[in-house]
Amino acid sequence: MRMYDIIAKKRDGKELSDAEIRFVVNGYVAEQIPDYQVSALLMAIYFNGMTEQETASLTQYMAMSGDIVDLTYFGDFSSDKHSTGGVGDKTTLIVAPIAAACGCKVAKMSGRGLGHTGGTADKLEAIKGYKTNISGDEFFNIVNKVGVAVVTQSGNLTPADKKLYALRDVTATVESIPLITSSVMSKKLASGAKNIVLDVKYGSGAFMKTKEDAEKLAQSMVNIGKLCGRKTTALITDMNTPLGFAVGNSLEVIEAIDVLKGKQKGDLYEISIALAGNMIALANNISEQEAQDKARRALDSGMAFLKFREWIVAQGGDANCIDDTSRFDTAAYSMEIKSSSGGFISCMDCEKIGAAAAILGAGRITKEDKIDLTAGIILSAKTGDYVGFGDRIATLYSNSKEKLSEAAAIYKSAIQTGSAPQRSPLIYKTIK
Amino acid sequence: MRMYDIIAKKRDGKELSDAEIRFVVNGYVAEQIPDYQVSALLMAIYFNGMTEQETASLTQYMAMSGDIVDLTYFGDFSSDKHSTGGVGDKTTLIVAPIAAACGCKVAKMSGRGLGHTGGTADKLEAIKGYKTNISGDEFFNIVNKVGVAVVTQSGNLTPADKKLYALRDVTATVESIPLITSSVMSKKLASGAKNIVLDVKYGSGAFMKTKEDAEKLAQSMVNIGKLCGRKTTALITDMNTPLGFAVGNSLEVIEAIDVLKGKQKGDLYEISIALAGNMIALANNISEQEAQDKARRALDSGMAFLKFREWIVAQGGDANCIDDTSRFDTAAYSMEIKSSSGGFISCMDCEKIGAAAAILGAGRITKEDKIDLTAGIILSAKTGDYVGFGDRIATLYSNSKEKLSEAAAIYKSAIQTGSAPQRSPLIYKTIK
Repeated sequence: MRMYDIIAKKRDGKELSDAEIRFVVNGYVAEQIPDYQVSALLMAIYFNGMTEQETASLTQYMAMSGDIVDLTYFGDFSSDKHSTGGVGDKTTLIVAPIAAACGCKVAKMSGRGLGHTGGTADKLEAIKGYKTNISGDEFFNIVNKVGVAVVTQSGNLTPADKKLYALRDVTATVESIPLITSSVMSKKLASGAKNIVLDVKYGSGAFMKTKEDAEKLAQSMVNIGKLCGRKTTALITDMNTPLGFAVGNSLEVIEAIDVLKGKQKGDLYEISIALAGNMIALANNISEQEAQDKARRALDSGMAFLKFREWIVAQGGDANCIDDTSRFDTAAYSMEIKSSSGGFISCMDCEKIGAAAAILGAGRITKEDKIDLTAGIILSAKTGDYVGFGDRIATLYSNSKEKLSEAAAIYKSAIQTGSAPQRSPLIYKTIK
Repeated sequence: MRMYDIIAKKRDGKELSDAEIRFVVNGYVAEQIPDYQVSALLMAIYFNGMTEQETASLTQYMAMSGDIVDLTYFGDFSSDKHSTGGVGDKTTLIVAPIAAACGCKVAKMSGRGLGHTGGTADKLEAIKGYKTNISGDEFFNIVNKVGVAVVTQSGNLTPADKKLYALRDVTATVESIPLITSSVMSKKLASGAKNIVLDVKYGSGAFMKTKEDAEKLAQSMVNIGKLCGRKTTALITDMNTPLGFAVGNSLEVIEAIDVLKGKQKGDLYEISIALAGNMIALANNISEQEAQDKARRALDSGMAFLKFREWIVAQGGDANCIDDTSRFDTAAYSMEIKSSSGGFISCMDCEKIGAAAAILGAGRITKEDKIDLTAGIILSAKTGDYVGFGDRIATLYSNSKEKLSEAAAIYKSAIQTGSAPQRSPLIYKTIK
């Protein structure tokens, strides 16, 4: 088998065989195939796509390229959740304990964030004492006992994805549905969960800008999940408005705790119920409606909050912070942003809002940057809300005073007002 | 300027600016841009093509990446000829002295061959004493005095093309008209001639399999030649039948001498007149008809033969060989191939015929192979000829006895007979 022939075959729009895809993945990881041949193949895939069967093969060989977490002990109950990423997305902090409270076993590996705000692992570190880096045995025991644990990726998980993603990132081949699918789903396969719920976002703050593209990606990921023997559901959700009101690590944890304590409803509450409901439905083989009712009861009754507290404590986190969120560290400086016009907020450019948060210190510009866990933004008004001239629309927090006005200018430029309220539904579609 | 953005721009079908193309070519030659980004760009170009302006920029920066031969001394008369390559193509040996006999200055750099048979430089080495590697001053002086000299490429000509071609060759990005155009034309620009005549072949023995593809390539090369300030003409010619009757280095030189001596007419004679005629037309600004008449007179009168002899002697070649071609070395073994059916030859697979010649020793399989200059094939019948059962259709020559039957089987499989004579015209079109 020659890499040249494989590139030419894909270039000519033909379907690669399972053996050819294995040859590419294994050869690349083993450094027998050079970057320059792989990048040519990736660009050919960008143009000609991949069939479902090709994507499934790619996903599986990527998953098998490194360690695979064994969750078979948890039978049908091991459940994972993945979001394609958005601004203010702290749903894992709410969804995981709801699902655990309803019997799911959520053994979650979470990445660090790049851009926007931190990843879930970064956010959890805002809780004093929380350890994201525990041994495999501890991780397993906490999942077994509590039902949920969240750690940073450890070991040699999907090295093929790491190499391929790094190459795609510098060769303009990221934006390809089969390549995104295989990247996400290979990690999910290697993470071992039987049930996978995907939150595929579209809009100004999402990777996919349109509903249509998000739906294509969601459909592709669901198909591949199933082809690879996992129960998979995807929700297509709106990311033209940040989720909830907090953007920034400790601010988001506090907001998640507020939701878990029943102090806040709205979009964040609803999407958490929907995501957890789908996890519960898959694990228990019950209808989505029945599962969502269970999820709502777990949240409304405080069971999910207790599960959250139990989990955080099990991973070394300080329970006092959770019971009294005023104990979280806070930023030294803040600035209120006032509306310079009156009307309904018609449009929020979430990418800009994420950029403003990153400037305040909440996100990483490069992988080496250190995050300011207290920095971020609290929104006072979101899309569809009416604001009068001079009303506060947001408050910025940072430990760097000089960053406030820079971020404020960006935040203001992200907000547009109009004469009528308009807001698209939070959940556009569920793909099973 | 970032290479990433340039790849993404081309991937999205937009036109690259002259500055962006300069950045790529210069950065790649300077090893500031890695192979894996360039191969992704090449694949994006494969899919999205390049505009004329982009191709012209690419060609010029590739030409400027190394040494440029200065032929301004020869004013409007410096003339070059390039063939996209075919089986039995020894036209340079005939065309160059005809053109020189009519006032053109042909300072030709010729490559070594790979596959099929040797390049023109290899063929010339079949003449005892001929030096393909002379100093720049000698080269210039012979062109000035005789009107023609042919050497192997020396110095640092188009290093960008060498790097890019090597990368295309392993990333399945060779078959792209703008990339082929820039590769060929950058070498022509760097070789310095004012007038360029291209022989773009199509058919079973050519890189371009169809007339239509050959025409696209020819049109592209002519456009770019003109945009870059050179007078350029392309002939689109048939390569479904080998040119002339000889395939193999010394055999081809002998055949070329026979044509120059007036002993052989036919396709090789006609295409040589057409190519030389177009060179003479461009150099003298006269009509193609008038130029072809000049070419024919030069050949028929023996002037071109004398010019050939003068050139070969100037480069150290043995005049006795030219005067008496029986003095050429000959292969130790030969084998006649008989027709196993009767009828008109309807089809010759020139690629197979080239492969048979290479097996006999006439071509290189890898760059390091040494050519057997005496090996090759003399055809006794070509497309359109009638052959009876048992008639000789070719004679194979080699110094390796055991290769004869292997080559014979391939040769036989290359020939098909039918019930009616059919042959396509030698010259399909001329593009000016």
